This record gives sequence, structure tokens and C-alpha cells, in this order.
Amino acid sequence: MSELPSHVDIRDVSLRDGLQIEDPIPLSAKLDLLAAIAATGVREMEATAFVSPSKVPALADAAELAAELHHFTDIEFSALVASPNGAKRAIAAGLRSIEYVVSAADGHSRANVGRTSGEATAQIREIVAIAHDSDVTVEVIVATAWDCPFDGPTAPQRVLDIVAAGTEAGVDRLAIADTIGTATPRRVTDLIALVRPRIGDIPLGAHFHNTRGSGLASAYAAVSAGVTRLDASVGGLGGCPFAPGASGNIAIEDLVYLLRDSGIHVDVDLQAAIAAARVAQDAVGHDLPSALLRAGDRKLD
Amino acid sequence: MSELPSHVDIRDVSLRDGLQIEDPIPLSAKLDLLAAIAATGVREMEATAFVSPSKVPALADAAELAAELHHFTDIEFSALVASPNGAKRAIAAGLRSIEYVVSAADGHSRANVGRTSGEATAQIREIVAIAHDSDVTVEVIVATAWDCPFDGPTAPQRVLDIVAAGTEAGVDRLAIADTIGTATPRRVTDLIALVRPRIGDIPLGAHFHNTRGSGLASAYAAVSAGVTRLDASVGGLGGCPFAPGASGNIAIEDLVYLLRDSGIHVDVDLQAAIAAARVAQDAVGHDLPSALLRAGDRKLD
Repeated sequence: MSELPSHVDIRDVSLRDGLQIEDPIPLSAKLDLLAAIAATGVREMEATAFVSPSKVPALADAAELAAELHHFTDIEFSALVASPNGAKRAIAAGLRSIEYVVSAADGHSRANVGRTSGEATAQIREIVAIAHDSDVTVEVIVATAWDCPFDGPTAPQRVLDIVAAGTEAGVDRLAIADTIGTATPRRVTDLIALVRPRIGDIPLGAHFHNTRGSGLASAYAAVSAGVTRLDASVGGLGGCPFAPGASGNIAIEDLVYLLRDSGIHVDVDLQAAIAAARVAQDAVGHDLPSALLRAGDRKLD
Repeated sequence: MSELPSHVDIRDVSLRDGLQIEDPIPLSAKLDLLAAIAATGVREMEATAFVSPSKVPALADAAELAAELHHFTDIEFSALVASPNGAKRAIAAGLRSIEYVVSAADGHSRANVGRTSGEATAQIREIVAIAHDSDVTVEVIVATAWDCPFDGPTAPQRVLDIVAAGTEAGVDRLAIADTIGTATPRRVTDLIALVRPRIGDIPLGAHFHNTRGSGLASAYAAVSAGVTRLDASVGGLGGCPFAPGASGNIAIEDLVYLLRDSGIHVDVDLQAAIAAARVAQDAVGHDLPSALLRAGDRKLD
């Protein structure tokens, strides 16, 4: 049998991946949602992205949001960036942690950032230098690690090339992302088995969407295979505007339920997460796909 | 790592578990749905239940439906029963395979059939005799194997007692059912590890609902732990009228997607299953929770 870790770090991505495909909501609504998520006890949050406001209007208030984050203590906030310029903007706005996303597939990379995967990979070193010059933590996220909506299955070597560039550049963390929600447990296990031996002690995270129903199964496979960091959003909010057919991130409350019942400790309180999912649902004005939001916890005794 | 089987038998339960909580639909609509499901290539189908028509009006046409099943060849049809009388009615109606469901928890057992778990277990021997006297295959399904909506967590010994009664009585198959959709992979693995050493060569199945989002994760854990038979419904149709909060079975198309991408062979064609889910959705007149029904297959090359 596989070994399970005793603890998994959950990063909430509601305000970034969760909101980016939604119609823009006011900053005040984001801060209310942030407060509800902070009340869950989560220790890490990807709060926004410093990317093109015209491509992602829902996150055009990145700098304004960043200016409010100091009100929330005990959370490590981060922002997603897609270029050296984005990294500089994030750091100038006060972020102490950034994620640089690189698509392993050229089709998605071109659609997302107008560059090939190789061109985006080549910028890892510069972005790490920008971050570390300011003592900022930097993670490389490999997007479309399993499949690209345009190119089909991603050759594992493409993922390993980005991972190698990241480790050589001295990234602080790595993650592999199932950007369009196609991964399944066996494929997750297989890819992680290739990645892990190549990254030494660098913490490895994974990011799943539940587009084809397998998100939680993949997340469980990932932690069984040695991943200790998982992204999730309250309510299963989210998607990717440049990935056709993409839908919600795995719901944090569904994930916490599954991990708790697997004997894996997390910092997120289940009932507070369900409450935050309700806040998210009100903020976006439509039903969210979370299961626990409807069914609630099981009877525990 | 866990070993995966090369093949898993999927039993479609759309017409029984899938429809029992719905408003009754005409027999002709059921037969259209059955034809669509038969076109998937599935080899086993739980077609109806011989239970109280007043308690499950959606399945009150069990005998009429059974009379039509001879039109569909290459499928082993079965019916669920909850008493010796139900077994007799099913066999008289022409069924060659029955499932006798026994709740491991007294709370659910009383609500479902008006008897304690022990009283229901005591009838296994009689039902096996009734079935085998007519050369009919009989399976015992242990309901509420992980949790009961009334009693909370089910002590594993309660499951093992039913399993023991089944093996002693000579049942042909056994299954454990997550009746209210609370199971998660670790708990699935743990229970199966207790059950398997006690059942010899009797095939073991599992039945999951996706009520808390973990249905597919639990199904994958089950096959990793030695289960070779899984129940599912097209579109994720279904629920249990006597289990508060219960919702859909795992969707057969989502399951087929996950198993295919895990290198596990099944008899069900994915695109035909999606087509059948569409027929089911039209038949019941509301959206079904299936993920593949919305997202479709991934790009395969």
C-alpha cells in the first residue's frame, strides 16, 4: 500500500483561480470572501495574479487587493505571475511569495501567454533572480502537466524539462497542475513517480480541477505518491478562461473531508470552509459545485 | 503501491437505484433508457426491485419491466429484494439473478425494511435457498457499510457478521455499499482489508454514491484493494429515499473514464455511456450530476 503523509498543506486559490473566470466582483466582496477563508485556518492563499488586466479583468484590482492583505495575519499570501514584469509588479505591490506558471504544452502556452513552453521556461531563471533579490519565495507551477486542450496528452519529458529548469534555477517550491481537469489517479501517480526523484527536498504541490469528476481521486493519489501541498478553492469555485471546458478547482471542503477521514491533518476547519463556500456562492451569484456545501459532514458518532 | 486489476465488471443500476427516488416514469421511457444503456456494452444491469410499491412507487412496475427483459440479450439482469417474499416475486417474474440488501446499521435497517440488521441477516439463508432452488444467482449487499444516517459510523464487525452469514449460506457474490455517500478512500481500503480474507473466492463488489464528492476516489481505492465489481448509473442518476442527504450513484461515464485512464478494461463504451446519460437526463427531466456529460472525453492524441 502507498504511504500517506501525516499533514498536507492546503493553499486556497479561491481569489485567483476561483475568481478569474467569473465576472469581476468588487474589492469589498473579495475582502469579505478573504475574511471568510481566513477564518478556516488556512495558512496559504494565492490571492490574485499580476497578469494582463485586459485578459483577466476579474483580477485587474491585483495591486489594490495586495494593499489590503496586511490586515490578515498568519497567512502566507502569494500571487500568480506569467512574466518577469508580472513578478516585479507583484513584489512592488508587497507580495512575499509568487508562483510563476509555465505551460508544458505549446498550444496552451501560446493561448495563455503568447509564448512557447520553451520560451516561458527560459524565463524561470530571471524570475527566480527577481524574487530572491527581494527575499521573495518563488514557486514554479507546471500547467497542462497531463493534457493540453489543444495539443492533447503532454509528454512527461516536457514536464521534466520545466522541473529541471526550476531546480537548476533554485526555485523554492514546485507544483504540477491539471489545468483542464483531465487527470486520473494512475496518471497522477505515474507522473509524480517521474518528478519526485529529480527534485531533492523541494516541496512538491499539485493542483487539480474536478472537470471530469476525478479531482479528489487525483488529489488522494497525489498525496499517496508524495505530494504534500494541494491547491483548492472554497465551493469548488473556478476555472481557466483559456482552457475550453475547464471547470472548478477541487472544493476545499470536499478535500478537507476526504483528508480528515484518511487520517491526514490539515489546517483548515471543515465547517468554516463550508461557511466560506457559502460566502463565495453569494459573491458570484450562482451555485458552486461543492458536494459538502449541499450534503454537509457525515454524522461522526 | 497497490495492484490494479486488469478488468472490472461494471453493473449498471440506473433503472433501480437511479430511478427509485425519482417521480415514476412510464415503462416505455424505462425501456428506451434500458436500450440506450444496453448499447454501451454493459454486461450486468440491476433492472428493478421487488419491494413495497407504496414505499418505492417508481419501481411499482417491476413485474411488467421484467417481462420485457428477454428482448435484451447479452445482459445479466438482476433485481434487488429485501425479503424472502420479494425474492419469490423476482424469480416468478423471470429474473435469474437477485440482490438481497441487508443494512449493517439498525437505524437504516429499521427505516428501510422495518427490521433490525440482525433480523435481516437471519433471512439470508432462506433467501439463498429460494434462489438456489431455482438456479438463480444471489448476491448479498451490505448497505450502510461505512455510515448510517441515523446511527453514525458503522462498526466493521457489523459488516463482517453479515459477510459471514452470507458466505456460510453460500451466496454467489458479495458487495459492500456506501449507501449515503460518506466513504473515502482510506476507510474503503481499511474495510476491504477486513472483508477480503474472509470470503475466499466469492467475487466482491462495491457500491458508491458521490454525495460528498469522494465517490470516484472511493471506487478507485476499492479496485486497488481487490474489488472487481462496481455499481454505477448513467449520468450519476440516483439516490436512496430512506437515506437523508443521499444523492447520485457514481456516474458510469465518469467511472469508465477514470478506469480507462488507469489501464483497467471495462465492457462499457464511454461515448455510448454519455449518450445514455443524455437519455436518462431527458427521461427524468432535470440535470444529472455527471461530469463527463458536460465536459466530454479528453483529447486523446
